Amino acid sequence: MKRILILNGPNLNLLGEREPDKYGNETLESINAWLTEEAKRIDTELTFFQSNVEGELVTAVQDGRTYDGIVINAGAYTHYSIAIRDAISAIDTPVVEVHLSNTDAREDFRHVSMLAGVCKGTIAGFGKDSYLLAILALL
Amino acid sequence: MKRILILNGPNLNLLGEREPDKYGNETLESINAWLTEEAKRIDTELTFFQSNVEGELVTAVQDGRTYDGIVINAGAYTHYSIAIRDAISAIDTPVVEVHLSNTDAREDFRHVSMLAGVCKGTIAGFGKDSYLLAILALL
Amino acid sequence: MKRILILNGPNLNLLGEREPDKYGNETLESINAWLTEEAKRIDTELTFFQSNVEGELVTAVQDGRTYDGIVINAGAYTHYSIAIRDAISAIDTPVVEVHLSNTDAREDFRHVSMLAGVCKGTIAGFGKDSYLLAILALL
Amino acid sequence: MKRILILNGPNLNLLGEREPDKYGNETLESINAWLTEEAKRIDTELTFFQSNVEGELVTAVQDGRTYDGIVINAGAYTHYSIAIRDAISAIDTPVVEVHLSNTDAREDFRHVSMLAGVCKGTIAGFGKDSYLLAILALL
Amino acid sequence: MKRILILNGPNLNLLGEREPDKYGNETLESINAWLTEEAKRIDTELTFFQSNVEGELVTAVQDGRTYDGIVINAGAYTHYSIAIRDAISAIDTPVVEVHLSNTDAREDFRHVSMLAGVCKGTIAGFGKDSYLLAILALL
Amino acid sequence: MKRILILNGPNLNLLGEREPDKYGNETLESINAWLTEEAKRIDTELTFFQSNVEGELVTAVQDGRTYDGIVINAGAYTHYSIAIRDAISAIDTPVVEVHLSNTDAREDFRHVSMLAGVCKGTIAGFGKDSYLLAILALL
Amino acid sequence: MKRILILNGPNLNLLGEREPDKYGNETLESINAWLTEEAKRIDTELTFFQSNVEGELVTAVQDGRTYDGIVINAGAYTHYSIAIRDAISAIDTPVVEVHLSNTDAREDFRHVSMLAGVCKGTIAGFGKDSYLLAILALL
Amino acid sequence: MKRILILNGPNLNLLGEREPDKYGNETLESINAWLTEEAKRIDTELTFFQSNVEGELVTAVQDGRTYDGIVINAGAYTHYSIAIRDAISAIDTPVVEVHLSNTDAREDFRHVSMLAGVCKGTIAGFGKDSYLLAILALL
Amino acid sequence: MKRILILNGPNLNLLGEREPDKYGNETLESINAWLTEEAKRIDTELTFFQSNVEGELVTAVQDGRTYDGIVINAGAYTHYSIAIRDAISAIDTPVVEVHLSNTDAREDFRHVSMLAGVCKGTIAGFGKDSYLLAILALL
Amino acid sequence: MKRILILNGPNLNLLGEREPDKYGNETLESINAWLTEEAKRIDTELTFFQSNVEGELVTAVQDGRTYDGIVINAGAYTHYSIAIRDAISAIDTPVVEVHLSNTDAREDFRHVSMLAGVCKGTIAGFGKDSYLLAILALL
Amino acid sequence: MKRILILNGPNLNLLGEREPDKYGNETLESINAWLTEEAKRIDTELTFFQSNVEGELVTAVQDGRTYDGIVINAGAYTHYSIAIRDAISAIDTPVVEVHLSNTDAREDFRHVSMLAGVCKGTIAGFGKDSYLLAILALL
Amino acid sequence: MKRILILNGPNLNLLGEREPDKYGNETLESINAWLTEEAKRIDTELTFFQSNVEGELVTAVQDGRTYDGIVINAGAYTHYSIAIRDAISAIDTPVVEVHLSNTDAREDFRHVSMLAGVCKGTIAGFGKDSYLLAILALL
Repeated sequence: MKRILILNGPNLNLLGEREPDKYGNETLESINAWLTEEAKRIDTELTFFQSNVEGELVTAVQDGRTYDGIVINAGAYTHYSIAIRDAISAIDTPVVEVHLSNTDAREDFRHVSMLAGVCKGTIAGFGKDSYLLAILALL
Repeated sequence: MKRILILNGPNLNLLGEREPDKYGNETLESINAWLTEEAKRIDTELTFFQSNVEGELVTAVQDGRTYDGIVINAGAYTHYSIAIRDAISAIDTPVVEVHLSNTDAREDFRHVSMLAGVCKGTIAGFGKDSYLLAILALL
Repeated sequence: MKRILILNGPNLNLLGEREPDKYGNETLESINAWLTEEAKRIDTELTFFQSNVEGELVTAVQDGRTYDGIVINAGAYTHYSIAIRDAISAIDTPVVEVHLSNTDAREDFRHVSMLAGVCKGTIAGFGKDSYLLAILALL
Repeated sequence: MKRILILNGPNLNLLGEREPDKYGNETLESINAWLTEEAKRIDTELTFFQSNVEGELVTAVQDGRTYDGIVINAGAYTHYSIAIRDAISAIDTPVVEVHLSNTDAREDFRHVSMLAGVCKGTIAGFGKDSYLLAILALL
Repeated sequence: MKRILILNGPNLNLLGEREPDKYGNETLESINAWLTEEAKRIDTELTFFQSNVEGELVTAVQDGRTYDGIVINAGAYTHYSIAIRDAISAIDTPVVEVHLSNTDAREDFRHVSMLAGVCKGTIAGFGKDSYLLAILALL
Repeated sequence: MKRILILNGPNLNLLGEREPDKYGNETLESINAWLTEEAKRIDTELTFFQSNVEGELVTAVQDGRTYDGIVINAGAYTHYSIAIRDAISAIDTPVVEVHLSNTDAREDFRHVSMLAGVCKGTIAGFGKDSYLLAILALL
Repeated sequence: MKRILILNGPNLNLLGEREPDKYGNETLESINAWLTEEAKRIDTELTFFQSNVEGELVTAVQDGRTYDGIVINAGAYTHYSIAIRDAISAIDTPVVEVHLSNTDAREDFRHVSMLAGVCKGTIAGFGKDSYLLAILALL
Repeated sequence: MKRILILNGPNLNLLGEREPDKYGNETLESINAWLTEEAKRIDTELTFFQSNVEGELVTAVQDGRTYDGIVINAGAYTHYSIAIRDAISAIDTPVVEVHLSNTDAREDFRHVSMLAGVCKGTIAGFGKDSYLLAILALL
Repeated sequence: MKRILILNGPNLNLLGEREPDKYGNETLESINAWLTEEAKRIDTELTFFQSNVEGELVTAVQDGRTYDGIVINAGAYTHYSIAIRDAISAIDTPVVEVHLSNTDAREDFRHVSMLAGVCKGTIAGFGKDSYLLAILALL
Repeated sequence: MKRILILNGPNLNLLGEREPDKYGNETLESINAWLTEEAKRIDTELTFFQSNVEGELVTAVQDGRTYDGIVINAGAYTHYSIAIRDAISAIDTPVVEVHLSNTDAREDFRHVSMLAGVCKGTIAGFGKDSYLLAILALL
Repeated sequence: MKRILILNGPNLNLLGEREPDKYGNETLESINAWLTEEAKRIDTELTFFQSNVEGELVTAVQDGRTYDGIVINAGAYTHYSIAIRDAISAIDTPVVEVHLSNTDAREDFRHVSMLAGVCKGTIAGFGKDSYLLAILALL
Repeated sequence: MKRILILNGPNLNLLGEREPDKYGNETLESINAWLTEEAKRIDTELTFFQSNVEGELVTAVQDGRTYDGIVINAGAYTHYSIAIRDAISAIDTPVVEVHLSNTDAREDFRHVSMLAGVCKGTIAGFGKDSYLLAILALL
């Protein structure tokens, strides 16, 4: 059985409540429950962690060394966190960057990703399916 | 009675000690006490929170959803925190950005605000009066 | 009794008619009348001047030397008038920059203020209340 | 009968005298006379205004609210006048930007138009015919 | 009788179907038919060519050497085709650049024209009338 | 049964031969055969088209209007083809952008996508799996 | 006897009062009187004009066509007035740009001159002597 | 006997006719004939291909894999064709970039070459001799 | 006896494990032990603090006010943390910025230091010796 | 009697021969002779030094400490020599920057002066008179 | 017999020793000897000069006026020496810029040549053959 | 015994005289004498060389190949000398860049080092101690 760590960054704890026309009505909890079910079918165990604090995400990525893969939606930190970038570089576990929305269709400052260059790949724009596709990509 | 949350960002806990010719001699505590008094006169209750941690300010803005308004002096994070920007966008409570000093009269990197575009308005340059004017603006 | 000069720049004479969803339905005259009343209560006399001509605003700022304070909404000139900036630098009277709308929430070229760096402070985004807050800030 | 306002900006009063190899030998007066004749044939009445003062052009655009259309050659102000841009935005009358010369074939700073984005359209490069084409476009 | 070549670039073959709120409901064929009629009245014969391929437009401009004038709506290639620019420079036939929509009112990358600097002039923003005005301008 | 169009841009016809350490040893034909098999299992029919010509890709995207979805790997054109971008905008069929390699880990000019902003989403970095994930994302 | 026109732009009417440590204590009137005396000795008649209005300076430059030379200190307009630049280009009279202070030793936005490129030459940094040197240069 | 492929890009088919003061009076055909003669002397066989279509040049570069060397004058595409760049990277045959004129002495956008970085070398500015020097360099 | 605070930022807790070819095989703990020994010889007591959280480093710098000097390796935060910069400005204790690797020999975004301008000095590129040299520099 | 040092930079030794339509026909020697004569009349002794070597000009500026003033035409080094800039800053002798031609009317890279900001003033565009005016300005 | 001057700039005296994988193992002396032999065959006499000093290269270019042509490899000065550029402009002798390596395949700051725009042409990337090709190009 | 070469660039020969509030009162000679003494204690022999000429510093770096290490304070050349950068790259001897002052606390153009990326490390801001620390770092 594979073990994958799902990391969510700032404001994703507000999912379902925050700008529902952009991010949908489902909460992070219900997305995580759905993902857990989906992952079970493909014999994969998921662990979830969310934080609004950049440094806690750095630590979580570091701790992800013992997993088979990491899926990270770093939210706003995607665009400026060299610290999270360095954490991803520092470990050997493959990391996939995901986004719920299509960041290229939003403000200019969201077109830049500090993380993509050190991740294995990127999946963006498919809502909660982005997470599931990332899990499939890691397997 | 209205309830307003006053958020202060990094290094504002050093007020009174830090570069007094730029920020004055009063401590954050004495400013808060003065504001509490002033607010009482206009039938408003203030709650205060200060943190040096960006992610804790993100959480504090989120928690400000239950208030009638938020006044935020995000200090240095004003200029690069997309995470705090997203938190402000994510809630319906009106937020006013304040600064003690006139940030446009300082270094170039302080002329940019990541927050102003998603706040209701901005008040800068009037020392501790900036907070009081922001409270008045929210009412 | 304090004497304050209220300067309005280009197109503010169209207030109430121009893009009412952005600037509201009130005319500049009615705003001025309301401000005059409000100022009286705090023992302050207001003088008003509006012009579409950059150079006339330069002269008006110069003439503001005899007042206790100046409130200026330079409209479009905010973003490129070094001439008005120099006039503000040239006098000792404190000047407060105001805006009806939140200029940071609009086009990129409105995010830059040539004036803010030489004013005492800035108040933006509170509609006609921006003027009143500026008067309070000067007192 | 339609009524159209023809606005000309700085230095266009020197036409015929100023750099004739770039702008031709005809004076603004003779162009206006020719346009008046041409317009009459298509049942249109023209009003002309020229000024070297940016703010007077702002006012003229505002006063153009009572016309069926405005043709504006803002000359040098085309490239930096946010004030004229705002005046065009503030009114409902359709405005067409014209230029005698092909501004894209000249210095880099003439490749940018602050006005085009808020006009109905642009016509450039056809000498005095630019005005006539703009009148036709408005009808 | 004058002979004019009308060139249309990528995606203009979808006119009437593509984003009708931006480009209107008429197809390119119906516009061409209308233009043919209008041109006849002023004793002008039109030839039409549309291609999605940049290089075919280059060739078409070159072949336009035998015409009395060329009207080109290069669509997306307007903003980056140095190849089409060079073709226009390489021939003596006067070329007029046209656009259906006001490109300056759209995304930033549409504010730049690689072609305008080597054309006789530009006409933008008047829907299908842009073509007719360009034909008039050439005559 | 769903019908999906798979578009490949310039130089992808050299797959397996071109820089195998970057793109792997499999040819486009063998990838397409594998994808056809995989798609059959999920009841989906694939159509393939490859071209080195930007304008032919524009036309292919336009023709994709009759499909249930389009997967596009526009290769080098990803980074500068406004023409393909406009074609994607012009149709209602959902389009997913894919890349074999992680473009953010390569030269700076590959960090920009002209297409991503008008696609439904993006999947990059997973080799031939990128196509399969995109098909799943469309379903 | 030679006739030279001395033009002064915005805020130069405040000389002697405005930031005396930067511009000295002498008023514009006393400088003009001194210049008149100095010019007489070299058989030159001076005419003076000052305005805060950009467009009036445009007109004044145009009117300078009948002089033997123009000395212009355009103040803040030096850095952005394409309109004054065009006026200088439009006439044949030689124009010399002067500045009291060394603009290159001040803020970045004062390092650019829109006028210098179309003037005969530039003299900056010598206080009131800058004007006298410019008169000598013209003779 | 060595075999070399000579590729010419957009508008080079107009040589001799196009801007003769910049590119000379000789046609591409006569240059090719001259090159064939010169190459024979050094025991080299030349094959020529010209196209205005970027994608056809991509294919031609790919097909150049079977030659001993490629000489490419990509014309305007030199400055923006990442697709041709990728084709050059994708093959092992050495490629030399040539230009008739000195591109660094022309417009700014011609100072950048997207191709040079992946070619073996560059030769520019010697008219038709540039091709011959490139053939010599390859041998 | 002097007291010096040694601060380490994000991912430095992974030293010895993270990219050993770039940062060496020693852990942060062994470096700290070695430094403690070296410092003892020169009669200096060291205190160590490491955090992945920007705001905790802000607080640590503030708390460094009671030390004789601070040595800070802010890791990734070096390049964008205005908050840490402000903390360094806010205290009187001299601060020395150190780096294990030569940041100028790495990615472009590591060539900028937000901290250097407010530190006493910078030492970079000497591995663990950078810390020892910084301690010597402070004494 | 005042003593002034006249420094000339690279290629000024070719004056009279180099691009005479831009710099005139007079040699540097004849200009120096003329200046010596003119200076004598105003009781001033001139010393001349020319070098093509940046570092020799640095040394010459340093040696200018014993003069009453320095006039420097640093030629091409004007635009990038921080070393000469530092030499000018390092001494107390007033330095005036001169240019024969109007550098703002030439290539973009000649619009920037590394020296002007640390000189007393600048005189440009008056041919050999620029030197004489600079001498007058120093006296 | 033709006379050609071969100029080499900074660090080329280290050829054969400096980074041999980038520049090869041959010394400048052996290259010069080889070139002398090759030139003799085509009845050409070569003169060689190498210097690390920018100003000496300026002088050498000036002295090249008496030759039939100059071949210059200015090394690092290629990218910033306006002084050498001006020297090349100042003389009538044709100058060819050469480089051993393909500068476009190296760091970004080596993609810019200050010299190319005023040379007759450029040859780069062919090792020592670059010099020989340049001699052929001059003949 | 180790042998180290100490190189000093432009204007450092003025130390003690030049801007003493920025660089201190000690002359270069007295610093060198002090360094010689300090070095002796750690069994190291120092050789000193100072030049204002960029090319002489290039040669000095090249000659440093026979030393065990080089300490270079290139002064102003630090910020633009690609020639010195290439010299450092060309040799195997380790080089340490030093600065007396904290260059990041000065003008923007001093924040960039052309040399740092090819040096072993950098030490800045500690006055004459910077040299001693660099010697220690090399040992």
